[in-house]
Amino acid sequence: MSTQRRESKGETTRTAILAHATKLAGRVGLSGLSIGRLARDLELSKSGLFAHFQSKQALQVQVLETAAAQFVEAVVKPALAAPRGEPRLRALFTLWLEWSRSQQRPGGCLFVAAAVELDDRPGPLRDTLVALQKDFLELMANVVRSGIAERKFRSDADPEQLAHDLYAIMLGYHHASRLMKDPRAEERAQSAFESLVSGLRARRKTA
Amino acid sequence: MSTQRRESKGETTRTAILAHATKLAGRVGLSGLSIGRLARDLELSKSGLFAHFQSKQALQVQVLETAAAQFVEAVVKPALAAPRGEPRLRALFTLWLEWSRSQQRPGGCLFVAAAVELDDRPGPLRDTLVALQKDFLELMANVVRSGIAERKFRSDADPEQLAHDLYAIMLGYHHASRLMKDPRAEERAQSAFESLVSGLRARRKTA
Repeated sequence: MSTQRRESKGETTRTAILAHATKLAGRVGLSGLSIGRLARDLELSKSGLFAHFQSKQALQVQVLETAAAQFVEAVVKPALAAPRGEPRLRALFTLWLEWSRSQQRPGGCLFVAAAVELDDRPGPLRDTLVALQKDFLELMANVVRSGIAERKFRSDADPEQLAHDLYAIMLGYHHASRLMKDPRAEERAQSAFESLVSGLRARRKTA
Repeated sequence: MSTQRRESKGETTRTAILAHATKLAGRVGLSGLSIGRLARDLELSKSGLFAHFQSKQALQVQVLETAAAQFVEAVVKPALAAPRGEPRLRALFTLWLEWSRSQQRPGGCLFVAAAVELDDRPGPLRDTLVALQKDFLELMANVVRSGIAERKFRSDADPEQLAHDLYAIMLGYHHASRLMKDPRAEERAQSAFESLVSGLRARRKTA
């Protein structure tokens, strides 16, 4: 009992640390995270933090995984609840846009920032990011595949190309909204998405 | 005469410093540039460097401008020498891809890295980057406009949207090649470009 309760309290603290660290990483980037800063923010001892995360790198890896789990809850799961084909692809895109512009992430999408931060830094943190992004690209390709299987999308559509293209649209949106402060950033992304979808639609009358 | 010669020597040194700093920034990012490191690399005194660039920020701004000038020479000028319409747009895209994968830039495109580095850091450096990117987006839009004017592209094409989309394709390429090490990154970018161009072609027989 008492061991269980201690474990459970430890788990609660760990979850609180990760939640705060993930929010902080959205502002300062993964490399800007520091055990000292977290200890101050959360009024914990540095040694207490090290007991939960043996290193800064272990913390960073878990922050990425926490952000990915939040993304799955906010974007992936509700999108997969939509009917296959265009409604599901559209739900994914719409929820993803919402995630990107969410006020909770003043630093912008953690994954976009991490991609540039880590692209030339081999190691476990980069490996974690690449694995998460591969999973997500595969998920997008699967949304296209299930639309093809149900004849909602053209049979000759290339699911992996479309996953790549959708990701590029979001990177373009991030660039236009965050750096360029383009008031039409969202409209541009939406228009690029519509072109992509119209290329995907199964041809009914022509062809 | 002697003043002129001194100025000219100063100019040569300044150019050499900027050339090295621009190469270095490709690896370490703009924020990773330091006057101390440059002084060591170039065997100059720190005070000598400060005489040329009054601050780290002034140096960073000039590094961005130097990189932009290199981009104009390597990509923009030769692309504008191609005939209007598809050949010019294609030349721009092809030369841009070459610039992105060039071995001289082991850290990837300085502008892509700088965009994420600076998107939430207001100041003269960010302003310089935004102005340079605006110029380049406008240049791409003009390549589309001149193609429309000569009836090579559809009259209802949206030049600004296409500039945005082309930029997104390059961001997607950067992500796929640098982070994901996708062996098909270039093929994917090429395929996205072909879709964009085929949507731009003036319809001749149908419609």
